[in-house]
Amino acid sequence: MTAEDDRRFMALAIQLGARGLGRVWPNPAVGCVIVQGGRIVGRGWTQEGGRPHAEPVALAQAGERARGATAYVSLEPCSHHGKTPPCAEALVAEGIARVVTALEDPDPRVSGRGHGRLRAAGVEVTTGVLAAEAEAAQAGFLSRIRLGRPMVTLKLATSFDGRIATAAGESRWITGPEARHLVHAMRARHDAVLVGGGTVRADDPLLTVRGMGAVRQPVRVVASAGLDLPLGQLAGSVAEGPVWLLHGNAPLAPQEAWRAAGARLLPVALGGGGLDPVAMLETLGQQGLTRVFCEGGGQLAAALLAAGLVDEVVGFTAGLALGAGGLPSLGALPAGPLAAAPRFELVESRAVGGDVLHRWRRV
Amino acid sequence: MTAEDDRRFMALAIQLGARGLGRVWPNPAVGCVIVQGGRIVGRGWTQEGGRPHAEPVALAQAGERARGATAYVSLEPCSHHGKTPPCAEALVAEGIARVVTALEDPDPRVSGRGHGRLRAAGVEVTTGVLAAEAEAAQAGFLSRIRLGRPMVTLKLATSFDGRIATAAGESRWITGPEARHLVHAMRARHDAVLVGGGTVRADDPLLTVRGMGAVRQPVRVVASAGLDLPLGQLAGSVAEGPVWLLHGNAPLAPQEAWRAAGARLLPVALGGGGLDPVAMLETLGQQGLTRVFCEGGGQLAAALLAAGLVDEVVGFTAGLALGAGGLPSLGALPAGPLAAAPRFELVESRAVGGDVLHRWRRV
Repeated sequence: MTAEDDRRFMALAIQLGARGLGRVWPNPAVGCVIVQGGRIVGRGWTQEGGRPHAEPVALAQAGERARGATAYVSLEPCSHHGKTPPCAEALVAEGIARVVTALEDPDPRVSGRGHGRLRAAGVEVTTGVLAAEAEAAQAGFLSRIRLGRPMVTLKLATSFDGRIATAAGESRWITGPEARHLVHAMRARHDAVLVGGGTVRADDPLLTVRGMGAVRQPVRVVASAGLDLPLGQLAGSVAEGPVWLLHGNAPLAPQEAWRAAGARLLPVALGGGGLDPVAMLETLGQQGLTRVFCEGGGQLAAALLAAGLVDEVVGFTAGLALGAGGLPSLGALPAGPLAAAPRFELVESRAVGGDVLHRWRRV
Repeated sequence: MTAEDDRRFMALAIQLGARGLGRVWPNPAVGCVIVQGGRIVGRGWTQEGGRPHAEPVALAQAGERARGATAYVSLEPCSHHGKTPPCAEALVAEGIARVVTALEDPDPRVSGRGHGRLRAAGVEVTTGVLAAEAEAAQAGFLSRIRLGRPMVTLKLATSFDGRIATAAGESRWITGPEARHLVHAMRARHDAVLVGGGTVRADDPLLTVRGMGAVRQPVRVVASAGLDLPLGQLAGSVAEGPVWLLHGNAPLAPQEAWRAAGARLLPVALGGGGLDPVAMLETLGQQGLTRVFCEGGGQLAAALLAAGLVDEVVGFTAGLALGAGGLPSLGALPAGPLAAAPRFELVESRAVGGDVLHRWRRV
């Protein structure tokens, strides 16, 4: 097997792993490809809810052909006994001769022990193949383990002058149906959708994934220090998917009302005139979330940007003008020179229906 | 010659004509291709300043081979004796057997008479070939003749939240060097660059075309009712290219100071709290301008949008956030429902350096 073969099969493993994004938290979305004599004999990826892992799925598909084969795994196989036996042991037990991985798992329960166990059993181990690609694909899990918080994608869908609603608050619809459908697909690839209380008061949104077939619904998270929220569509749809409320010193009455509706209440420290953005994300990370899709509003988006917590921005620009009276997509940021403004580099831009999509990654 | 041949040669004529955009006002930017026995024997386009026209340039190149040939012209040949003899006569005199045009010239001095003169001389005439494409390419000239005003392209170069400067007014630079270079190329393809007085006060811009080699500099137009403008870079650079000032009841002192600097003063009717946008553009149309590139600021841009006077929007979106304290790209528009907002359809979107370019046309 050449280094080029290794990269090719690893690229496939990373691609398969990405199928689990938004469906496997708190686990990483891993992919596995088993290759015997140059032919793929097994493929697997982390299943919904995080179990089974990618490796046993691929091993089951390979069956007897796993003996003497090479396994490509986009993250170091686990070594600890959790709900299932460790994947490193399973690979050894099925007679895998060589394991190629992209990354060491930074989870302290693994962190090199998976590779070590394989080597101790006489398996040849190659690591670091397509590491940068695997880092990007698993950015959410890595963020949660390394930084204690999920990665954050901020969505802004605006008129070409950066407004998200008219002066009267009308916002349906600024972008076209194709862009809105793509937003549902993006929600489905995140563990949670996050909005501020102002958005709930203004729009009473449902925030579920719709029009994408059967999916694991993302957690719907509302950040509202005082819980001054109407018990609207969110409260009425807890059966469709979880609703979590990040709050500060909120009165007991709304806390009880939301709890009675089936929502989960998560108290968060205050800071800077509202919920502290770092504390918010650390709370979500402690709950196991790895990928959060923030859909505004402008105050929450600005707070996350100002705190340096936005990893990616997804912009949709629509062909209309709303003018300075319209609602801005971002609230105020701390004053400062242009050179200090939060900066992002372009990842992709293209037309989506009649709108323009642009994706940016933190510099 | 098949209809497919006709379209192919006309597409070339339209493309050649576009070379004159920004250089030929008050004339239309016309292209001409002369074809003899299936081979191109002459090409021409309207020359700088509008003379000579496309047809005599192409005829001169064709020489004797024009006899019995077909001439493709992106606009009806002129029929009136102006500074030069009419092109319809020149085509007849050189023995052209067939003339194919895209559009009838709406100029009342032509308006069918060019075609008529050709037919009267026994020349076969086919009209309306690629008419829509020619309309688009000559939108500025057609707007001036039909509506009495130039077409307007509005440029907005903003942060991804639609801001053009920090709260402190810092705006250099939001977009990258590639986008700024493209802006100079766009200026060069317009007859004039238009800004409001606020932009001159804030930025003291030069507004010339730079870094594009030798070009006919566009007229630099400032709209400022009271002429409360610093005599800065514009006043100091009249030798590089014309400066025109659209003003209202401005005090005599600044009028005289600007006139002394070599600028041209054009009084315009007031309306709606400033210069009347329709009157502004009609004044520019009377001066012969066909294509105006408006680079803001927000108040002028909003006034033009609100009056339905913006034909195209060119947006550049940069990967940074400035927040609600930053200067908005557009001033206030009249309040109204979302369905009444000025709407544009997407023409093109692509990455330019690290920024996103999006071009829109009025619906």
